Amino acid sequence: MDRPAPLTVEETKSYLEKKGYFELKTVLQAHLSPDIVEIIDDLETAEQVFVFRLLSKEMAAEVFSLLDRDDQEELLLHFSNETVQHVIEEMDPDDLTELFDELPDDLVKRLIPLLSPEDRSVVSRLLNYPEESAGRLMTPAFIELTSDKTTDEAIALIRKVGLDKETIYYSYVTDEKHRLVGVVSLKDLLLAPPGEAVEKIMTETVVYSNTVEDQEEVAKLLSKYDISAVPVVDKERKLVGIITIDDVVDVITEEATEDFHKMVGIEAPEDDYFGTSFVVLGRKRALWLVILLVMSYLSSIVLKNYADILQIVIPLAFFIPMLTGTCGNTGMQSATLVIRGLATGEIEPSDFTRIFLREVLMGGFLGVILGLFSFIRAHFVDVNPFVGIAVGCAVFISVIVSNLIGSILPMILRMLKIDPAISAGPFITTIVDVTSLILYFEIAKLIFGIAG
Amino acid sequence: MDRPAPLTVEETKSYLEKKGYFELKTVLQAHLSPDIVEIIDDLETAEQVFVFRLLSKEMAAEVFSLLDRDDQEELLLHFSNETVQHVIEEMDPDDLTELFDELPDDLVKRLIPLLSPEDRSVVSRLLNYPEESAGRLMTPAFIELTSDKTTDEAIALIRKVGLDKETIYYSYVTDEKHRLVGVVSLKDLLLAPPGEAVEKIMTETVVYSNTVEDQEEVAKLLSKYDISAVPVVDKERKLVGIITIDDVVDVITEEATEDFHKMVGIEAPEDDYFGTSFVVLGRKRALWLVILLVMSYLSSIVLKNYADILQIVIPLAFFIPMLTGTCGNTGMQSATLVIRGLATGEIEPSDFTRIFLREVLMGGFLGVILGLFSFIRAHFVDVNPFVGIAVGCAVFISVIVSNLIGSILPMILRMLKIDPAISAGPFITTIVDVTSLILYFEIAKLIFGIAG
Repeated sequence: MDRPAPLTVEETKSYLEKKGYFELKTVLQAHLSPDIVEIIDDLETAEQVFVFRLLSKEMAAEVFSLLDRDDQEELLLHFSNETVQHVIEEMDPDDLTELFDELPDDLVKRLIPLLSPEDRSVVSRLLNYPEESAGRLMTPAFIELTSDKTTDEAIALIRKVGLDKETIYYSYVTDEKHRLVGVVSLKDLLLAPPGEAVEKIMTETVVYSNTVEDQEEVAKLLSKYDISAVPVVDKERKLVGIITIDDVVDVITEEATEDFHKMVGIEAPEDDYFGTSFVVLGRKRALWLVILLVMSYLSSIVLKNYADILQIVIPLAFFIPMLTGTCGNTGMQSATLVIRGLATGEIEPSDFTRIFLREVLMGGFLGVILGLFSFIRAHFVDVNPFVGIAVGCAVFISVIVSNLIGSILPMILRMLKIDPAISAGPFITTIVDVTSLILYFEIAKLIFGIAG
Repeated sequence: MDRPAPLTVEETKSYLEKKGYFELKTVLQAHLSPDIVEIIDDLETAEQVFVFRLLSKEMAAEVFSLLDRDDQEELLLHFSNETVQHVIEEMDPDDLTELFDELPDDLVKRLIPLLSPEDRSVVSRLLNYPEESAGRLMTPAFIELTSDKTTDEAIALIRKVGLDKETIYYSYVTDEKHRLVGVVSLKDLLLAPPGEAVEKIMTETVVYSNTVEDQEEVAKLLSKYDISAVPVVDKERKLVGIITIDDVVDVITEEATEDFHKMVGIEAPEDDYFGTSFVVLGRKRALWLVILLVMSYLSSIVLKNYADILQIVIPLAFFIPMLTGTCGNTGMQSATLVIRGLATGEIEPSDFTRIFLREVLMGGFLGVILGLFSFIRAHFVDVNPFVGIAVGCAVFISVIVSNLIGSILPMILRMLKIDPAISAGPFITTIVDVTSLILYFEIAKLIFGIAG
């Protein structure tokens, strides 16, 4: 026994060339679907179609679900109708919904007739929920019990219907109108005395989500309450689906990546590096950089405004990158802390005052240290000591201001329902640059006694 | 039925003041432990001790496990020995290990005698594994089967021993030397015909981890193979523990937060905003900012070096923040893409050439656009058109360089086994500032025809 995935892409290609289909089929059977996905990723479409023919129906559906959207589209165009039907028959409703959501319309039209009537109704229902909502993420394949059942009856039911369910480890208890009233785990059912009523052992304090809730909130629920599945109810509190933790793990990783990318203006529909097309990524990146470039117009205007004193005390210019850099870094630090705190749910808008006070203190502390260091540093560049004093004072005040802007701006944006991760870059940098430059030159003017 | 947590901190305090212990106990029983944690967080230590007395043993252990380290320490100092014993008796081995790992030595010495002999041996064994390793994260509370069992015997065993196990949903099959040979899910056991041999239905292609593997790699395994628990083996391939997905969800969130923080130099032992002490955070932040400030000494030297041309063409100074800003932003974009790709496992060191080529192209594309925009922008600041040409050319070349530095540096650091997230800030900013300023002034010198 060893960790899976000894089969390489080269070996697969050589099996296919030698027409060693039977051997390849046997080798593939000993692999797990995520490892087959890694091999298939690097094959040509025609080779991919061949490999799919060698997989069992169930494995084919699993592997297909895990492929990139582009590969899926390409394969659907090359599969026979029969293969398409095999694959989509076996796919979970939530994966199927995600697929139909992202495929081009003409392909969807071709596929719809190949769906079973039940799948068709499920997919069209789930697609009606907003993007990134619990409704989109959930699956209707859950186990539903009425509270009058005994544990034995419940276990018998699970054995009967469990095969097609997303999880058999939680059963949801509903009333006659399918409204959620409790949850019971398979563990509780198995460990309870046989013949006990489900009503007696179920938990009535159920953590649940509703169909329109954002997927990020669902992820927080599962992580906070340490549960592996959460039931989803509709407006009438009827149980309509469940979301399992495996889908949520992907959501957490995706949302973190999304936030990283937003902070530098590269939020893309696909969240991975190679999965995003050069053109889409290039356009996103260029747009954000151009916006920042245009906004930095303000800093040029500020500097132009102080051309007189700059002309007289040229060494003032030597410290511009250090000043804007230090203040920008300070602002990005406090912004990152607050943005991440808001994203994980640790910081709430109600913490405004507490954060404000803490960051005023922190800014003061950082301002003193950085002001002192920049004064000393100016000395080493060997300039007029008055320049050093101007640099030190400007850094001291600007760091306090930048630190506050960095921490407060994300809070304000969150209150205005604007995503705080987007704000970190453009706003903070621009505001911080302009304020620190104005402070710097005003202090310099004071020190060098030149009137505006 | 409604979402949990209607009890507020004020209500809790008023119950305690009125000595309404019985009522409070009843109300608390209808709550889930994460909600009780939120209430306890905002109480004084004496009040916290009171609330703990009202909780069941099991709930007390759960709530205690979820508290911040500081609160835990404080409570352990105020609990009676009896309460301490109740709490630690009920705690899971992995939570207990984490607690003992982080408590001060003198408190650990006081607690060790209160542990049961089994707990004592488990904790001391787990603490021997490296920090952030699979060995630290795992729990020895798993279900172990031999392959000669039938499904009925296996289910009977689960019913008997399941209560104290971390999960009953996977049973691990081992040989006579406790070496892992397979895994069987409770689902497979329940849905198989009664009397079937476990050997026949178990999966032999087991995904497993080993005790010294990094927790981030374990998280990737669970997420890649979509499994809710992974077995951990020692050097002799003996099964020694399992890691369940609930612990991994925390790891994923923690690791993402850690990376966010690293990128701005605030990697702290505690990963949350309020959980980190002001002094620890202030020291971390100041250190990183001072390092950057000292490194920006180079940019001042560069500027001083070009004081002559600056003196003659003062407007060159107007565009310094724009130039360093644009190049810094470009470098941060490509660095973020690559760092996040490396963190999620999408990008491997072997992708070096592919990324290099892609980013050369991307840099060229961004360079043309940003160079053009900065040339136009310079026009609006109303300066000598030759300055605009210098600005445009410098931005064009510097953006290409910055983009490459941002994408390649993290790859190189990863190959040198240095964490790439740390590099983004200090190195990229410094290198990008210096190179872009030198390019800018050299181009300006060429254009204005002044010899060095």
